[in-house]
Amino acid sequence: MVGGGKDAFIGSIHRIAANMDGLVEVVAGALSINPEIAKESGKAIFLDPERTYLTYEEMLEKESKLPAEKRIEFVTIVTPNFAHFAPAMAALDKGFHVVIEKPITFTLDEAKQLKKKVEETGLILCLTHTYSGYPMVRQARAMMRDGVFGKIRKVVVEYPQGWLSKLSEREGNAQAVWRTDPKKSGKAGAMGDIGTHAAHLAEFITGLKITHLCADLNALVPGRMLDDDGNVLLKFDNGAAGVLIASQVAAGEENALRIRVYGEHGGLEWAQMEPNSLIVKWLDKPTQILRAGTNGFLHGEAIFNARTPGGHPEGYLEAFANLYRNFAIALSSRIDGTPAPPHVNFPTVDDGIRGMAFIDSVVKSGQSKEKWTPFEI
Amino acid sequence: MVGGGKDAFIGSIHRIAANMDGLVEVVAGALSINPEIAKESGKAIFLDPERTYLTYEEMLEKESKLPAEKRIEFVTIVTPNFAHFAPAMAALDKGFHVVIEKPITFTLDEAKQLKKKVEETGLILCLTHTYSGYPMVRQARAMMRDGVFGKIRKVVVEYPQGWLSKLSEREGNAQAVWRTDPKKSGKAGAMGDIGTHAAHLAEFITGLKITHLCADLNALVPGRMLDDDGNVLLKFDNGAAGVLIASQVAAGEENALRIRVYGEHGGLEWAQMEPNSLIVKWLDKPTQILRAGTNGFLHGEAIFNARTPGGHPEGYLEAFANLYRNFAIALSSRIDGTPAPPHVNFPTVDDGIRGMAFIDSVVKSGQSKEKWTPFEI
Amino acid sequence: MVGGGKDAFIGSIHRIAANMDGLVEVVAGALSINPEIAKESGKAIFLDPERTYLTYEEMLEKESKLPAEKRIEFVTIVTPNFAHFAPAMAALDKGFHVVIEKPITFTLDEAKQLKKKVEETGLILCLTHTYSGYPMVRQARAMMRDGVFGKIRKVVVEYPQGWLSKLSEREGNAQAVWRTDPKKSGKAGAMGDIGTHAAHLAEFITGLKITHLCADLNALVPGRMLDDDGNVLLKFDNGAAGVLIASQVAAGEENALRIRVYGEHGGLEWAQMEPNSLIVKWLDKPTQILRAGTNGFLHGEAIFNARTPGGHPEGYLEAFANLYRNFAIALSSRIDGTPAPPHVNFPTVDDGIRGMAFIDSVVKSGQSKEKWTPFEI
Amino acid sequence: MVGGGKDAFIGSIHRIAANMDGLVEVVAGALSINPEIAKESGKAIFLDPERTYLTYEEMLEKESKLPAEKRIEFVTIVTPNFAHFAPAMAALDKGFHVVIEKPITFTLDEAKQLKKKVEETGLILCLTHTYSGYPMVRQARAMMRDGVFGKIRKVVVEYPQGWLSKLSEREGNAQAVWRTDPKKSGKAGAMGDIGTHAAHLAEFITGLKITHLCADLNALVPGRMLDDDGNVLLKFDNGAAGVLIASQVAAGEENALRIRVYGEHGGLEWAQMEPNSLIVKWLDKPTQILRAGTNGFLHGEAIFNARTPGGHPEGYLEAFANLYRNFAIALSSRIDGTPAPPHVNFPTVDDGIRGMAFIDSVVKSGQSKEKWTPFEI
Repeated sequence: MVGGGKDAFIGSIHRIAANMDGLVEVVAGALSINPEIAKESGKAIFLDPERTYLTYEEMLEKESKLPAEKRIEFVTIVTPNFAHFAPAMAALDKGFHVVIEKPITFTLDEAKQLKKKVEETGLILCLTHTYSGYPMVRQARAMMRDGVFGKIRKVVVEYPQGWLSKLSEREGNAQAVWRTDPKKSGKAGAMGDIGTHAAHLAEFITGLKITHLCADLNALVPGRMLDDDGNVLLKFDNGAAGVLIASQVAAGEENALRIRVYGEHGGLEWAQMEPNSLIVKWLDKPTQILRAGTNGFLHGEAIFNARTPGGHPEGYLEAFANLYRNFAIALSSRIDGTPAPPHVNFPTVDDGIRGMAFIDSVVKSGQSKEKWTPFEI
Repeated sequence: MVGGGKDAFIGSIHRIAANMDGLVEVVAGALSINPEIAKESGKAIFLDPERTYLTYEEMLEKESKLPAEKRIEFVTIVTPNFAHFAPAMAALDKGFHVVIEKPITFTLDEAKQLKKKVEETGLILCLTHTYSGYPMVRQARAMMRDGVFGKIRKVVVEYPQGWLSKLSEREGNAQAVWRTDPKKSGKAGAMGDIGTHAAHLAEFITGLKITHLCADLNALVPGRMLDDDGNVLLKFDNGAAGVLIASQVAAGEENALRIRVYGEHGGLEWAQMEPNSLIVKWLDKPTQILRAGTNGFLHGEAIFNARTPGGHPEGYLEAFANLYRNFAIALSSRIDGTPAPPHVNFPTVDDGIRGMAFIDSVVKSGQSKEKWTPFEI
Repeated sequence: MVGGGKDAFIGSIHRIAANMDGLVEVVAGALSINPEIAKESGKAIFLDPERTYLTYEEMLEKESKLPAEKRIEFVTIVTPNFAHFAPAMAALDKGFHVVIEKPITFTLDEAKQLKKKVEETGLILCLTHTYSGYPMVRQARAMMRDGVFGKIRKVVVEYPQGWLSKLSEREGNAQAVWRTDPKKSGKAGAMGDIGTHAAHLAEFITGLKITHLCADLNALVPGRMLDDDGNVLLKFDNGAAGVLIASQVAAGEENALRIRVYGEHGGLEWAQMEPNSLIVKWLDKPTQILRAGTNGFLHGEAIFNARTPGGHPEGYLEAFANLYRNFAIALSSRIDGTPAPPHVNFPTVDDGIRGMAFIDSVVKSGQSKEKWTPFEI
Repeated sequence: MVGGGKDAFIGSIHRIAANMDGLVEVVAGALSINPEIAKESGKAIFLDPERTYLTYEEMLEKESKLPAEKRIEFVTIVTPNFAHFAPAMAALDKGFHVVIEKPITFTLDEAKQLKKKVEETGLILCLTHTYSGYPMVRQARAMMRDGVFGKIRKVVVEYPQGWLSKLSEREGNAQAVWRTDPKKSGKAGAMGDIGTHAAHLAEFITGLKITHLCADLNALVPGRMLDDDGNVLLKFDNGAAGVLIASQVAAGEENALRIRVYGEHGGLEWAQMEPNSLIVKWLDKPTQILRAGTNGFLHGEAIFNARTPGGHPEGYLEAFANLYRNFAIALSSRIDGTPAPPHVNFPTVDDGIRGMAFIDSVVKSGQSKEKWTPFEI
């Protein structure tokens, strides 16, 4: 693991997710650029002090020299955005598979270089677009793929949070500090942090691609350096219309990612804060509530990504763990030389490239006086 | 009543709303341009055949000659949009107050003429923006006016319906026929029919005014003559950002008007389909659910517009009846020469003008390649 | 109208309900035993002073002597429980149909006498078990009658309110005073006031009859003279098990009547505070939400009792108005000598008798050391 | 681990829960009485074949002889009810701490013997009443302890499931087979399996003790050997009234454990299927929704048991993991000789004894003709 020292939110999430199914064990880490924190953090998660490294370069160097049965099999990168690219390239160069946080890199160009490296090495890269790991998101995707709603006409995806409603970056909130700093976060704030999740979810579920967007990006908290709120009109490649709303100043909201998709015959609605329900609406039939873990009518990929029977709620950590689980199964198959079982699926470097292109396009549109800006890769 | 013959949806709604509190009695009508339907409809609602007129001109003429204690006091106009202006002007000319359906007229210019007439005659005009009649909408407005959330930063108002998901205007659906016909409905479809409600609600609750908009209007059902779906970015006069979504092809949706407003300290959420709850969210306190009819903490104007104690749900018809009730109380006060009691409030010709300006601006924006179009009256 | 002077909660509810559909007009009243209040109340609702009577005897006497086309057609009785029987008997004796509040009388014996009188006179009596007027309750009943869930196994009906959580009867709350006074309310408190509604709803929806009950009745607020809370185990005539919970000291609850019924293949859930949804659960299919006013799959009796299309919520007042509407249509048919149209249905004196028997049995069970007490009429 | 071979539902749940926080590692197991299954199951979870035992006796014997730093520290027992007691006693005898599924034993007497053994050995026993591990259950308990609602008057706890709506034990459903078999499950069916959870939750949250109960237990599916449904009236030691409903034939229900508690000033509601919300209702203030993971107003013990910020839903597995986490922290403190940190709390052998006493009392009451049966230990 690169990054994820104590007090890092996402690092501990990754460890829980990796632990959950007993398929992955965290055995080595370069957990912080601060040596003291790196060591303390390693101790806190019971790492062997020998494998508690002070830099990712050291880790990759030393681990690659361990005997195959002992050395790490893949590297997880959970540093702030600006520090994704270098360790990812280095890990691939040393022959390690990679799990990496989104947005995949700092710039679109880096993402493209990373893709090239992945292709050259033939290694596996998993991008942790967490929300694609929920069983009912997989169910939604499967229903869309089956075409049960007819042609898709409209997509509304929204991601309101409220945690940046104050200028917290000036009050020592470590999360706020790097996420609102263009040098660490990149050219977008809310759009990079959560807008990319929303855009990915919309494309993941519908199977459509965004072709144009029209963005109104704002820094609504005085003094903020990056957008903390944005509303974006979308066009999709099949002609569907869309709206993407992302805000980190929707005071009082927690993490209210929600998507609604409408086709000719009906539509669906999924909300991350009640993730085990998928609401399916029909033009001429009663609304249905499909529930994770229930029997007899869910698609295989929804079943594959659930651990508990209906009514035993799974949540964010299980969705995250599903990405690790899908990745680990793919990795095992690779190692065993067998084909991956059906339903194994996780976001890859291609999703990462689309995420970076989304950031580029949405920022460009936000600065434009033209209504429509093409989504360009 | 002008219009509202049998099979007319909104006419029977108006009658129920007018009846409800025993303050208004429907005693005369020109219910249809078809004489047979006009007569049958009059009989069906127990009108005196003498006062079942065949044209609104006849009705206004004859009623104005009846003795004061017998003649109608006001006229309700529930015809399709293109037939609002003429009877409204005529009624005012004859000295009758007016209740009128939205959008107030066919063009913005007509709305301005109507305003002039209202000012000249000193009569009362009530525009039935139904949703402003709900007690918890009044509560929301009062809380906003009190400034409890600090400066408003963001408004999301959406109005998804699904009933025009098919080309129903070709299948003999009378409601669909006129609402999708530019000659009867005006230059906008969904934006005129329901977008105006959404825009009104946003301004009514927040007290802000829209200054710019950026619209993506679409006719998503092939063969449709007017927009059946639209997504609009908004700017408000205090700098707040907004989104307005209106669709009549959101297959499976009923009448899901919903608004969320966020300020510095918190925000609120109200949904028309569960209208007795107002959800209030705070940056640093637990979410609250304020409920219509409950005691001890609601604003006077919310209490004034409820008839039942908490837990005895009031709905759409009561909200509609509240407009009649507020109007009737204002009218009684006018007749008695006393000031209207506190909290009496209903949309007027000024709201009608803003509605028509919204239609003009949103259609103009929809056709523009520029991102922002000013909201012009 | 007998009773229902100003400040009487249920009187104004009855008037709104009667007004709503334009089928009923309140033209005469003996609104209070206090002559001043009777007169003021009559004026407030625009009654002819001539027909504002001081006693029900006077009203019945004088109205019965008016010419047929002018006199009242039926009498609505909205007095406290102890004052139901005498005016109802007198009204029937004078040839007037009757609408009457529940519980129908003060004692079971009176209810039986009333039934005899109804049968002798051939007149119509409508008992206002309001909750049976909701469209989705009618839908539930129709689905049960169709047997779609197989044999019914379990019924849970609950009716929590919180408004008697304090000893409000000592603080001048007029509603609380009579409802907690055995001389005015009868031998039961909460069980009479709301337990009867819950029991009626359970039998109305399922078509089953309660045969035995086991009650734990409590006066949980010190100083209260009647039960303010009760939990009751039920047995039904088909062998189903049940629970009935009624409380007026569930602090913070509004009027949360809710019923769940389970059969072999699935079950349903309906909650009065969100009355336009009927949740239908299946053993092997996704949960469905059936919504009032929607097209294509509701039973005729649900459609018959709705006024608005889906998503335009109807509530408590509409449910109440449905009883008046069903009653008024039945009355018109009687007057016209035609059969009542299909779906016309309202609670009658037989439901009143079962309500009184419920009160008798539940109080007897509450005092018994035996587990099961038969439900006896 | 004793029990929990492949296809055992609860075994894999325990492993996920134990893994989640990286505090516990499963290193040895006697996973099945079938040697083949035991071996395969060990392999599937990556156990050392050396430590994949065929009987728990063998495991305890061999592990106890390993050097301290290598041997297991505690034993988890996840066998069917009849096979809890013997391995638990044996583990304690060998000096191992114990985590054990509920109901703790097959009989109340065994539970008492186990308590004696725990006291003699001074070892730690954790009983996995899962639902007590949810953060918002801890919040509810803390608010009750603080007395914010005044004297508690009423408790309604319900646990409807539908999975035994058919006679699945005759169709080869392994879970159904043992849970409906008196020889493996004990004298109660639904009451032992889920009624004990409901009773525990009620006592855990309120801090009250059940003193009397009145049960109606039924086997509603023909041919079933144990109760599959029960409704129980409760009395608590402070005079509060209660109802406990548990059913496994509520067709269409998943795992809908829900509790409502009412005091003088308000009450609370918590539902397992939406576990991150605690609804708090007040007599004279708006309803509040307290949410897991949010800042600034939750009690320490709610915060202590959450891993993610608000809006990142945690679920059943996290609740389960919380028991392991609390147990593991207590165990570490014991080993380190330091006091356990504040908020560490998990159900113990005393809760197990009350669970067994509940089963005894509820079955006795179900067979009695008397209304009230004392809750006896």
